Amino acid sequence: MYRTHHCGELSLEHLNQNVTLSGWVQKNRNKGFIIWTDLRDRYGITQLVFDEERTPKAVFEKAQGLGREFVIQIQGTVIERESKNPNLSTGAIEVLVDDLTVLNEAKTPPFTIEDQTDGGEELRMQYRYLDIRRSAVKEKLMFRSKVSMAVRNYLTDAGFVDVETPYLIKSTPEGARDFVVPSRMNAGQFYALPQSPQTFKQLLMVGGMDKYFQIVKCFRDEDLRADRQPEFTQIDCEMTFVEQEDILNQFEGLTQHLLKSIKGIEPNPFPRMSYEEAMKTYGNDKPDIRFGMTFCELNDLAQGKGFGVFDSQELVVGIAVPQAAEMTRKEIDGLIDWVKRPQIGAKGLIWVKCNADGSHKSSVDKFFNAADLAQWAARCNAKTGDLILVLSGDSHSTRSQLSALRMELGERLGLRNPEEFAPLWVTDFPLLEWDEESKRYHAMHHPFTAPKPDQLELLKTNPGAVKANAYDLVLNGNEIGGGSIRIHDQALQSQMFDLLGFSKEEAQAQFGFLMDAFQFGAPPHGGIAFGLDRLVAILGGEETIRDFIAFPKNNSGRDIMIDAPASLDQNQLEELSLKTTLTKKE
Amino acid sequence: MYRTHHCGELSLEHLNQNVTLSGWVQKNRNKGFIIWTDLRDRYGITQLVFDEERTPKAVFEKAQGLGREFVIQIQGTVIERESKNPNLSTGAIEVLVDDLTVLNEAKTPPFTIEDQTDGGEELRMQYRYLDIRRSAVKEKLMFRSKVSMAVRNYLTDAGFVDVETPYLIKSTPEGARDFVVPSRMNAGQFYALPQSPQTFKQLLMVGGMDKYFQIVKCFRDEDLRADRQPEFTQIDCEMTFVEQEDILNQFEGLTQHLLKSIKGIEPNPFPRMSYEEAMKTYGNDKPDIRFGMTFCELNDLAQGKGFGVFDSQELVVGIAVPQAAEMTRKEIDGLIDWVKRPQIGAKGLIWVKCNADGSHKSSVDKFFNAADLAQWAARCNAKTGDLILVLSGDSHSTRSQLSALRMELGERLGLRNPEEFAPLWVTDFPLLEWDEESKRYHAMHHPFTAPKPDQLELLKTNPGAVKANAYDLVLNGNEIGGGSIRIHDQALQSQMFDLLGFSKEEAQAQFGFLMDAFQFGAPPHGGIAFGLDRLVAILGGEETIRDFIAFPKNNSGRDIMIDAPASLDQNQLEELSLKTTLTKKE
Repeated sequence: MYRTHHCGELSLEHLNQNVTLSGWVQKNRNKGFIIWTDLRDRYGITQLVFDEERTPKAVFEKAQGLGREFVIQIQGTVIERESKNPNLSTGAIEVLVDDLTVLNEAKTPPFTIEDQTDGGEELRMQYRYLDIRRSAVKEKLMFRSKVSMAVRNYLTDAGFVDVETPYLIKSTPEGARDFVVPSRMNAGQFYALPQSPQTFKQLLMVGGMDKYFQIVKCFRDEDLRADRQPEFTQIDCEMTFVEQEDILNQFEGLTQHLLKSIKGIEPNPFPRMSYEEAMKTYGNDKPDIRFGMTFCELNDLAQGKGFGVFDSQELVVGIAVPQAAEMTRKEIDGLIDWVKRPQIGAKGLIWVKCNADGSHKSSVDKFFNAADLAQWAARCNAKTGDLILVLSGDSHSTRSQLSALRMELGERLGLRNPEEFAPLWVTDFPLLEWDEESKRYHAMHHPFTAPKPDQLELLKTNPGAVKANAYDLVLNGNEIGGGSIRIHDQALQSQMFDLLGFSKEEAQAQFGFLMDAFQFGAPPHGGIAFGLDRLVAILGGEETIRDFIAFPKNNSGRDIMIDAPASLDQNQLEELSLKTTLTKKE
Repeated sequence: MYRTHHCGELSLEHLNQNVTLSGWVQKNRNKGFIIWTDLRDRYGITQLVFDEERTPKAVFEKAQGLGREFVIQIQGTVIERESKNPNLSTGAIEVLVDDLTVLNEAKTPPFTIEDQTDGGEELRMQYRYLDIRRSAVKEKLMFRSKVSMAVRNYLTDAGFVDVETPYLIKSTPEGARDFVVPSRMNAGQFYALPQSPQTFKQLLMVGGMDKYFQIVKCFRDEDLRADRQPEFTQIDCEMTFVEQEDILNQFEGLTQHLLKSIKGIEPNPFPRMSYEEAMKTYGNDKPDIRFGMTFCELNDLAQGKGFGVFDSQELVVGIAVPQAAEMTRKEIDGLIDWVKRPQIGAKGLIWVKCNADGSHKSSVDKFFNAADLAQWAARCNAKTGDLILVLSGDSHSTRSQLSALRMELGERLGLRNPEEFAPLWVTDFPLLEWDEESKRYHAMHHPFTAPKPDQLELLKTNPGAVKANAYDLVLNGNEIGGGSIRIHDQALQSQMFDLLGFSKEEAQAQFGFLMDAFQFGAPPHGGIAFGLDRLVAILGGEETIRDFIAFPKNNSGRDIMIDAPASLDQNQLEELSLKTTLTKKE
């Protein structure tokens, strides 16, 4: 037996007991006549003592050779510490060692195994197995396990059935790029890895499974933006005989359960906001509502006053930054530079300070008088000491620019407290969005989303104006879940494929099985999917997902620890009836 | 709201309540003036009544048009049935319908949606979404969900952390064939889908995760034998600072928990048997111990008596078939033909009847006298009325043939009761097996399995004789789990790769990251993996796994419902820098 206790367990209760522990050497303090060694495992740290006078000589000598990260087993007696460490669960005791076995030696790790490590991202990923020994990473992985079990418990208790859907499915050109898998037994043909189990969960509803969930890996072969992974995990759910309201209630329940059981928070009922309102008020369909600075549209107040920059624009819109009127000219210039960066793309930024004496000072004093600026301030609900920032341009870009500025200021002003949780349902998304490049409609959510039932006529006359029973759950400015009521009518589904530019043949070849299924008694149904990686990160109080994933890939989609992807043996390619078209030089 | 209750819920308690139900029309009985309709959902069946006198006329008329599998919503009043159905949870009541909405019509399904369907396998798979509506399939999927949740609860309570390992990993030529995934971003390179998360779970142990589990899809591109799937699910587990005994206890605990919580069985401690004993006694490393007919070796009794068939053979071995002496000559000839089939491959079968009068009658009376046969009977523990069946030949083939015969007879004699559960640990597997074809050793379990610690010397002199701390959990003649103590020493792992015929370069290229990891303080560790599909099927009392999988593939690895795999668009191939090498005709 390697251990009687783990390293986070012993306390004064165990005084004088003989114990066996196994773990890693965290650090040694060698005073010559006495050695203190911190022994670490998943559960904690226990201090060992090797004492020239009280430890057998051979053991004491062996202890001299212990290095960091050596794996050892010891036997010893629990004794009380002279100077207790109140920050450690085992801080009241230490173990006086009688016997020591070195189970495995260790080379010096390439970075320190401590909360604050000296290892950079690349090095940490290459030696991820060492990185995981650090509490900071280990705790995140354990936290993820806890969240995912809490999800399972809630959904199982609510009658959801965990059904595994296949990973080897069929490629569909709609949406993002698929990862594909050549079939050896069906030469020249390919499976695809699922971007989501969407059609399968709908078929489970057609099959009468009623309430389905699955925590499932999904795959998307996209050029990776920061903090995206080619494989990611979804909490995938679907329900039958439900309206939007039923789904929102069910999954608000799930999210509340997580906030309660994981974070100890009793949340209020989640606010709801239409897509249109979110775009108008926050310039964004996933607003962070932990802080204000909501948008105030100023067209009627700001146009026609001779300020040419505003006059011709579709939208003039501002935010009132709380207590920022004290900003220096240099600081404001910094903001102006920030919004002009190519990532944001604004042409400039107008500012108005709401001074302590009730006056206003602006960058456009030439064009607007005191009364004008007072009206702006009233519209923006600006208080004394606030700073109003105004952008103008076409609605779409301007909202997006001001939204970015708002988030940046929220961050700079410390208004985005990671331990505060502000969930929000965004509803009534448009069904379709027009794509200028391909000159056709794309599904805003996916091709299976149902239009609002009272807008079926509008779908024929003005598809772009049709709204869907589609909804996102937003948490602290991140979309953590999204779903919709689905189409369950074969004719309507076929109409949708037409609108999305599928020929009848393409629709049949790719989704014939689904449209067939709809002819055999498909029930009304709908669902939602949560991004588990993101959800866990936000609940864990972080913005980046990478350390909540045990073995993440880098921005080129590579696992640098195992060095994948890699070349294949020629005979593997031959068995798959494939060859690569690269020239030698590549 | 689509329903106030589901279809398995209403009883006399709800009498006179107004209810709303939604579901599928299971069947109609139309008596002209009254129509009874069985309404079905996941939870049960509720009988609806449309009565000419009591139902609104328009509703009654609409009800005339209802066909099987129509999806409907009704409102009505719960009333007491005149003739109750005690086999139905809702059998005491029916619902007198006031209002009827047809939510979706249905074409006549290609097979009947009943427990015993008229649909063949191919048809059922093509319309799997209809097949799943049948209780027989639906219950199996719900059973699977229940088992997998019970596994999660047990392991979570025991301190295991659910860690997701990556699906896009690296191909390794060792073992079965990988499915591979071309990388677009890393042109000419491929990921592989995991055959198991083996190396990752070991790295989690090196990373100090201590106790890991995951219920995870794995992939193997093999020519599919009956009842194998290219993608399958594993309960994958690993532990640190454990010996074999710790692992057997932990996972015997898991299996007992499943037998108790799922089947209501209180199992005894599981028996254990070495691989050698299993092969000698059952001819098989996964013996079904629900019944006897253990092997009796007869070489010393049966050789040198002038019967040439036996004399030159490595092994003469028999089984006593209980109460089978009554078999007719024709029945015995049937058995002889059975063992001579190419799938079994025996040359013939010798039989001895243990007659009621104490005499023995055999097919080899010419060579063996009464005393000889009595000795055989004694060796085989044969009782009066038993039939001894004897095979001979080389040990390996003969054991395998007799094992197949034993299983066949167990089946025919009804000794394999699916509701009886006989778990067994098989231990002490050989580390390596010699492969005549490639003239080299293969790992019996996998290349990471540790030899028994006291046999490290033997590994140099006679590798084939070395045993491993490897174990299988066998249930009713099926291997449901298998695992081992792993190597955690870099030098020993390197020696293993040598033995398995890897060059230093190959070992480094494929498993360098693991051997690197072993140098930074790798702890002793071991684990096990259960095949969830098989485990669930056996617990469910069935031998075949297919209906415990929502969307299985057929024997050619195809999903015939969605028609995958399929050809790719040319531009998808180009993006992947690939082309197929098929000639046009293929």
